[in-house]
Amino acid sequence: MKLHFSESIQQLKTLATREILKLTQGNDIISFAGGLPAEDFFPDKSIQSAFVKVFEQGKNSLQYGITEGHSLLREEICKRMLLKGIQANLDQIQITTGSQQAIDLITKVFINRGDTILIENPTYLAALQVFQGYGANVIEVSSDDDGMNLNDLTEKIKRYQPKFIYVTPTFANPTGRVWSKERKQGILQICKQFETILIEDDPYGEIQFNKTTDCSSIYSLHTTNDFNPVLYTSTFSKIVAPALRTGWVIGNENIIQQITKAKQTADIHSSMIDQQALYFLLKDFDLDQHILTICSEYKKRKDQMTHLLKEYEIPAKWVEPQGGMFLWLTMEDSTINSAELLKKAVQKGVAFVPGTVFYTGQAEINTMRLNFTYSAFEQMEKGIKRLQHVLS
Amino acid sequence: MKLHFSESIQQLKTLATREILKLTQGNDIISFAGGLPAEDFFPDKSIQSAFVKVFEQGKNSLQYGITEGHSLLREEICKRMLLKGIQANLDQIQITTGSQQAIDLITKVFINRGDTILIENPTYLAALQVFQGYGANVIEVSSDDDGMNLNDLTEKIKRYQPKFIYVTPTFANPTGRVWSKERKQGILQICKQFETILIEDDPYGEIQFNKTTDCSSIYSLHTTNDFNPVLYTSTFSKIVAPALRTGWVIGNENIIQQITKAKQTADIHSSMIDQQALYFLLKDFDLDQHILTICSEYKKRKDQMTHLLKEYEIPAKWVEPQGGMFLWLTMEDSTINSAELLKKAVQKGVAFVPGTVFYTGQAEINTMRLNFTYSAFEQMEKGIKRLQHVLS
Repeated sequence: MKLHFSESIQQLKTLATREILKLTQGNDIISFAGGLPAEDFFPDKSIQSAFVKVFEQGKNSLQYGITEGHSLLREEICKRMLLKGIQANLDQIQITTGSQQAIDLITKVFINRGDTILIENPTYLAALQVFQGYGANVIEVSSDDDGMNLNDLTEKIKRYQPKFIYVTPTFANPTGRVWSKERKQGILQICKQFETILIEDDPYGEIQFNKTTDCSSIYSLHTTNDFNPVLYTSTFSKIVAPALRTGWVIGNENIIQQITKAKQTADIHSSMIDQQALYFLLKDFDLDQHILTICSEYKKRKDQMTHLLKEYEIPAKWVEPQGGMFLWLTMEDSTINSAELLKKAVQKGVAFVPGTVFYTGQAEINTMRLNFTYSAFEQMEKGIKRLQHVLS
Repeated sequence: MKLHFSESIQQLKTLATREILKLTQGNDIISFAGGLPAEDFFPDKSIQSAFVKVFEQGKNSLQYGITEGHSLLREEICKRMLLKGIQANLDQIQITTGSQQAIDLITKVFINRGDTILIENPTYLAALQVFQGYGANVIEVSSDDDGMNLNDLTEKIKRYQPKFIYVTPTFANPTGRVWSKERKQGILQICKQFETILIEDDPYGEIQFNKTTDCSSIYSLHTTNDFNPVLYTSTFSKIVAPALRTGWVIGNENIIQQITKAKQTADIHSSMIDQQALYFLLKDFDLDQHILTICSEYKKRKDQMTHLLKEYEIPAKWVEPQGGMFLWLTMEDSTINSAELLKKAVQKGVAFVPGTVFYTGQAEINTMRLNFTYSAFEQMEKGIKRLQHVLS
């Protein structure tokens, strides 16, 4: 029988990272590829206590919930967001199955096939995949270490009239960079001027290595009473644990209503047990103290990785990340194709993500993304040693 | 700022049932509207033990999982499916966030805007919403108490060349009916002949009141070695608990691969904690015995509801359901508009779903769906009494 799949699904290429992860599973491969948090620091005992409290609530904690998400959890998230300067009421927040679902639902709510989305280049691979699946015309805006080039942005807004702009301004995936406050303020003003929606994807914003880094969210920079064009999305995956698959999106009520409608047909609602457990966790556990621990440990791992890269003379340069989970390497030899290099690397027992997959259009083939949070010191050293072998 | 939403989201009307549920929340309204299982029978202690076992596994149970779903859970589902005559290996099953997500992902995998889907009329409201959201041309096939009219089906396949046919052949939502085995075999043959995919949505198949009712799944009737055109979907929402949001879809490997791709961009994977807990539950808890208990209790509630409808002389007829969760009433007075009636009913403190929302095209306005599983005896009597007031 001949199968006739939709255009959307045909346009969705299988994710390179996913195939890589498959190769590395169960083998003696040290993987710097996945965006995995370190298991050692998961607050498992506190999570378990939170689940016990859910069951103590009685049987109705096992019933269907509302699509918007558990109200008490949304309240706790609003309180946490306030600490980041993000003001939102309960009707401005939708719970999602990780922030990935937020990106998917937002795209569903805005994009007709052929509509334009502006992005940073490089940017988060799985967001690119979502946009391609919806048949969007994805256009890159030139960027540097301070964020998007605002002149190029303005020009491209005028030229393409995009439905939205997608950015990860704080400890970006894959580059690890933080936009300067000036650029953050700039993009907000431009979005207001041209009435363009801005998706601020912020899964890493709390994983901050230096107190002095300005991690303001673009959403919070809107302080006037007019329309805030920013949709802010984040997740508990990196600061609590990924298995809970709980993220959220905050924004204008009219937009959130449409996202809720999309969520209703997508899966009715996310796991209510996990949402209730997260509510108890936020209430009873010192998440901020926990985040400080993670940040301190991840900083150590980042320092160790950059130290090892120097020690083993990996011929690459990078901008020292001030937070997040990734180190973005540019090989000194600009003819190195890191996608080709990966095949050899996997044979030698080490994996990374070749930089090319994060680009649309012109890609820098000699780039790669290394995750520094997952591997403990010994493993990390073994992995970097193997990388040295591959390159020599 | 003017918001420009996508066609998809504009076509998605807010679900009537959802608005009704909102009206009934927190008020003294007895609702026969929702498709809720009875909380009294949730196996909360066993579910709690299953979660404890997840945490005993150690911290890596909190890490990201694979998109296809927890392998051990998929194995257990395969074993259960075998008891229903459904043979599938691990690569033929995708875990979803409830069976709602299975319907959404299947539609994403097959439907371009304008493609045709054939359905029963009436059919599951939230599936209709999904299909409309993807811009499908939804065409009804005439049906009677034995299932779809196979002549009309054949004619419409020839005329419209549908991408797929969507049916709930066992204890349907909203009608509660079961297709005859002959019709089940008939539709399978027709789908094979015309190379058409068949979605068999089976959330209620195990809620069976009489041992003699033939609940064969259409998927299981395919016993030859050629291509099985059936995608079978079900969920733990009705037989364990909805809050876990765990369903699955079984089918041809090539199709499942595409569904996995769609799932990857939609939300990476469903809650791994819930999936692992369900694995332990299936392994250590006598789910079949539990299902027998539910069936026996739900049959009592169904009997009570039909008894009350007679006792309070509700002027309606119905086909006695042999399973599932719903009673489908047709008011004797064919001029009664049950959507109008609902407004009065909510004022009098009782809710149901007006039948019209389950139809595309020609609707029978004097129909309504009553859920008989959620309300315990006393509440149910109070509700039916109120319904009598509304009608008198």
